[in-house]
Amino acid sequence: MKKYLVASILFLATSFSAFAQQNLWKAQDIESAVVNLDHSVTFRFQAPDAKKVQIAGDFAKIKEDNPVGGLVGTGLIDMKKENDSIWVYTSEPLTSELYSYMFVVDGTVTVDPNHPYIFRDFGTVSNYFMVPDGLADLFMVQKVAHGTLQSPWYHSEKGKKNRRLNVYLPAGYEKNVNKKYPVLYLLHGAGGDEDEWVNYGRTCQILDNLIAQGKAEPMIVVMPNGHIDFEAAPGESSMGLYKPFHPAMMNGEFEQAFPEIMKFVESTYRVQADKAHRAIAGLSMGGFHSFHISRLYENTFDYVGLFSAAVGMTKPEGVYANQDATLKKQIANGVKLYWVGCGTEDFLYKNNADMRAMFDRMGLKYTYRESGDGHVWKNWRLYLSEFAPLLFK
Amino acid sequence: MKKYLVASILFLATSFSAFAQQNLWKAQDIESAVVNLDHSVTFRFQAPDAKKVQIAGDFAKIKEDNPVGGLVGTGLIDMKKENDSIWVYTSEPLTSELYSYMFVVDGTVTVDPNHPYIFRDFGTVSNYFMVPDGLADLFMVQKVAHGTLQSPWYHSEKGKKNRRLNVYLPAGYEKNVNKKYPVLYLLHGAGGDEDEWVNYGRTCQILDNLIAQGKAEPMIVVMPNGHIDFEAAPGESSMGLYKPFHPAMMNGEFEQAFPEIMKFVESTYRVQADKAHRAIAGLSMGGFHSFHISRLYENTFDYVGLFSAAVGMTKPEGVYANQDATLKKQIANGVKLYWVGCGTEDFLYKNNADMRAMFDRMGLKYTYRESGDGHVWKNWRLYLSEFAPLLFK
Repeated sequence: MKKYLVASILFLATSFSAFAQQNLWKAQDIESAVVNLDHSVTFRFQAPDAKKVQIAGDFAKIKEDNPVGGLVGTGLIDMKKENDSIWVYTSEPLTSELYSYMFVVDGTVTVDPNHPYIFRDFGTVSNYFMVPDGLADLFMVQKVAHGTLQSPWYHSEKGKKNRRLNVYLPAGYEKNVNKKYPVLYLLHGAGGDEDEWVNYGRTCQILDNLIAQGKAEPMIVVMPNGHIDFEAAPGESSMGLYKPFHPAMMNGEFEQAFPEIMKFVESTYRVQADKAHRAIAGLSMGGFHSFHISRLYENTFDYVGLFSAAVGMTKPEGVYANQDATLKKQIANGVKLYWVGCGTEDFLYKNNADMRAMFDRMGLKYTYRESGDGHVWKNWRLYLSEFAPLLFK
Repeated sequence: MKKYLVASILFLATSFSAFAQQNLWKAQDIESAVVNLDHSVTFRFQAPDAKKVQIAGDFAKIKEDNPVGGLVGTGLIDMKKENDSIWVYTSEPLTSELYSYMFVVDGTVTVDPNHPYIFRDFGTVSNYFMVPDGLADLFMVQKVAHGTLQSPWYHSEKGKKNRRLNVYLPAGYEKNVNKKYPVLYLLHGAGGDEDEWVNYGRTCQILDNLIAQGKAEPMIVVMPNGHIDFEAAPGESSMGLYKPFHPAMMNGEFEQAFPEIMKFVESTYRVQADKAHRAIAGLSMGGFHSFHISRLYENTFDYVGLFSAAVGMTKPEGVYANQDATLKKQIANGVKLYWVGCGTEDFLYKNNADMRAMFDRMGLKYTYRESGDGHVWKNWRLYLSEFAPLLFK
């Protein structure tokens, strides 16, 4: 009986596509971004009439000038045509990681029609895949208890609007109705929004897995939108489906309005609302925000994490004035963990070195983690994976 | 001071891209899918070396055979090259709606690099845009109080796995801690998953807006995954990033396991757990599920909605046996609203007509809504917009 059903329904299901790509691409009965046993990855793209198909990916070393544009951090590799129609490329065995890629077909950049896993980063999209048996196992959905991701809205008096944020509740939150949880505030970079740590950051998966392994305490993770002018990520706000642009940023408004977010979180969720159970961390602009918020509210966070922080670029005006005085207070009040991470190739490496020298002068003790690579998600997922286990212990 | 900051940060921000499309596409300082004042829509695609650029969209009437593949429900329109590099097409003024589209560049289908709003539908992705000042105003994020979308996981004993679902909590749920809410269970089609009603269905926006306008009661909407073999939507499960495929379906297992979902919802959220405050509805396979679940648990739902239901295709075996007997019980117990919607062009139109004739014979009173078009999301968003206001009154 099952066969009868499946056969009739498969016919049905192919008609179910709300739009037509399934039909446009229906001849593409091929698989792409297939991770092989040796951890090489095979990509396939069907284009019988194309003259040249290339793959642009952050797994590919840059070997030559990019003929398409100022490609940063991404090599461009020629694929080979097989069977007169399918272009194929198999990579070297790759280290366990989350990678991004796109195809370039006769100069036109396109997503992979046979691998519909796509992230938006600021104004653009790309495919991604993961290579297992190492760090990326933390980024994958495993057969463990899962936390709940939710996207509530809070009202910002200062921003004069409703604003969206993402909240990760650890597994068991709904059942353990008398338990209160510590909170990590996790902030995005200048090109990001509240969805960035969820998508590229793999925050839910990293926390699910670290907690399931007993390596991190069950905690709530709050991922707000750091652009106070915006209600929400592109496409999620009343601005509609606009072409993403950078708003005014790093002007102190987010730091000034931050208590609104804490107030919303502490009145909505079962949280341990004290310094010992609050952490704040962020990447790039979010690291900058974490630095300033933690010193402005100088007795609020016992845990601070600066991931490739975009420090040392603002004038000492407004909330950025009196930096030393507030930092001294923060140091005097004590911080259980002040964690700084930066990649050796990061264009903010010197800014971070200068910041650390300043910390040394002022007597702020910090943990320093130097990794390879530049200003990339590879580092920020790594930092979260190492930072989260140190919290609330 | 702001200028200084913005200038320095904009430089910074352009280096923030985790991957390289921003750079690949950085010359594309153009806007696409721009809705003009007269509701025509202008699309732009930069491709100086392309010989032919076309746009495939569900707003375009089919006028000719599609040179790419068996394009269903989607016209393919030639764009015109302007300024030696940018291909342009401006549509006729369009009715207020959510539309999908893609570009076809010398035969290669690609997403729009200047409009990063993309939905995945089963195994494929497409861009979308919305035309305002009509029905689609309900689909847009408006400046109203917003509900909370969340993705919890429940344990399925029958499915022997943790399974993900989406839950919409209406605005005010978190604050009104003594209020209990009615529940609409909203089920997807055969090619879909728990994310389908959130993305293509615009469920959060439709409910936010109808509730804000006082047209619908504040309600919880539960969107489970109707494929019992799967933990979650593609990419959200421990199966990793596989090429989506259709599992065994419409074999009765989802219907049998459905009480697990109700039990999870009623023990996790503040719900009015009685028949008068339960509704079940779904599209296509989800309409089929709603029909069978509501008759199998024959005194459980006061509201049933079948949207283009995929009925009349299963053998009367297993849970699909004894259909008349259970339906009689359901009719005897009483249903406040039994709602049936179908498009005149739907390939399931006859199946639905046969079902209505059967309802007539058996004395089941139902509300019938016939719309134009076929088996498409346009109808299902419309049906939700009309069905939700009728619930729990």
